[in-house]
Amino acid sequence: MTNRRAEFRALHHAGRPLLLPNAWDHASAAALAARGHRAIGTTSLGVAAAAGRPDGTGATAAETLALARRLRTLPVLLSVDVEAGFSADPAAVAEYVAELAGLGVVGINLEDGRTDGTLADLADVADKVAAVKAAVPDLFVNARTDTWWLGVDDPLPQTLARARAYQAAGADGIFVPGIVDLATLRVLTQRIDAPLNALYQPGGPGLDDLGRAGVARVSTGSLLFRAALAAALAVADGVRAGGLDVLDGLPSYAEVQGLAPAGGD
Amino acid sequence: MTNRRAEFRALHHAGRPLLLPNAWDHASAAALAARGHRAIGTTSLGVAAAAGRPDGTGATAAETLALARRLRTLPVLLSVDVEAGFSADPAAVAEYVAELAGLGVVGINLEDGRTDGTLADLADVADKVAAVKAAVPDLFVNARTDTWWLGVDDPLPQTLARARAYQAAGADGIFVPGIVDLATLRVLTQRIDAPLNALYQPGGPGLDDLGRAGVARVSTGSLLFRAALAAALAVADGVRAGGLDVLDGLPSYAEVQGLAPAGGD
Repeated sequence: MTNRRAEFRALHHAGRPLLLPNAWDHASAAALAARGHRAIGTTSLGVAAAAGRPDGTGATAAETLALARRLRTLPVLLSVDVEAGFSADPAAVAEYVAELAGLGVVGINLEDGRTDGTLADLADVADKVAAVKAAVPDLFVNARTDTWWLGVDDPLPQTLARARAYQAAGADGIFVPGIVDLATLRVLTQRIDAPLNALYQPGGPGLDDLGRAGVARVSTGSLLFRAALAAALAVADGVRAGGLDVLDGLPSYAEVQGLAPAGGD
Repeated sequence: MTNRRAEFRALHHAGRPLLLPNAWDHASAAALAARGHRAIGTTSLGVAAAAGRPDGTGATAAETLALARRLRTLPVLLSVDVEAGFSADPAAVAEYVAELAGLGVVGINLEDGRTDGTLADLADVADKVAAVKAAVPDLFVNARTDTWWLGVDDPLPQTLARARAYQAAGADGIFVPGIVDLATLRVLTQRIDAPLNALYQPGGPGLDDLGRAGVARVSTGSLLFRAALAAALAVADGVRAGGLDVLDGLPSYAEVQGLAPAGGD
């Protein structure tokens, strides 16, 4: 296990970012693994929406754990989005994350944004990070600050302060979603002494440019899930409108069947 | 409940087919409902693959029930694919389906194809149909025969014999996937005195042509699920290859959040 966690950690190169695509169920994770992705994240929006629950409200602790259990036979390094840890109590967060770690999970994302649009108290988030690291020292804790995401005023100083506090508590990486401006990313990578995770956005900078800005990890958030949903709806619309031409690139029935582990889970 | 089942039954028009798109999780079902589909089916392949289990092997009884439970707040008429009923025992099949019916499900698909490529004994399938109809008389039982799907020799007589037997046992509709030839479909609709369900295939006949052949219901099977998976992989590939232009038509974060029922499930 420690070796797999060390391997995951080593994939974070400032300048040559790890692309971490985010899955939401076994099929998406297994298909990404089969496509050659050694490391995969989860998307809390996708996990929540698949289950018919809201994201970001601490409502999907069970579903998130069940997903990690389902994915444990895949040959991937799995980092799990645990929202804000599904609890306000650092000890409960640590216990939950330890259960994930017991399933082979190599990292987590822990966020400070709240659904009311405000940021959680910095010290409370740091306490969660510290509790998790005390419970599972070699787990890669990617602390996400939603300063840009939530549009706080003058986000840079607040982001740096939070990054420092989360790192001091033991965070291994810092995730600041919502930035597509390379100059801003460059400032962050220069001033934060930890691997910086950027959220990929279509139309925004590509992997190479993000790497040149010093980014160490690029994740896709809910993008793949939203693209999947859009494609399903587009096909349904096409059928309803009369019909569709042959669709290229669809996995066959047998290919989808082949994603399931041989012995079930 | 009886009114909803009667409504579902009435949507099966020979000549003006019901389009029944197949969902696999809450998000896909809720999004299809929001797109105006009054009736929705499930895809056993999608449900199984999402859970990391093989399709068609009776391995997803719990997941299928859990999905029906998650979808019960949606304003749709739900027909559930129960593979071969998840049991060889007609009484157990009936008990399982009665539980689904208790969740508001208006119909089921019950199939006679087996993973070894053979058809189940006709009388055994008829016994399951009869047991289900005895337990939930007004449930729409769509009996699927895999004569074409599995490529049996000289499928027409066998299909007609099975359709007759399943109907005699109480089946409300007959589903023969794997046919895109309109002349063949026309023969079936002329010789089977029950609503005929055809499986939509991209590049095959559209809804209007299927309607003219007398088809009463057109479902999409695993198509939407496979299109969704393909889209997710294509986006991941695009990001890995360097980057993507802005993607049109993706649901926003807020739109996906809006699919969850207000009070959770």
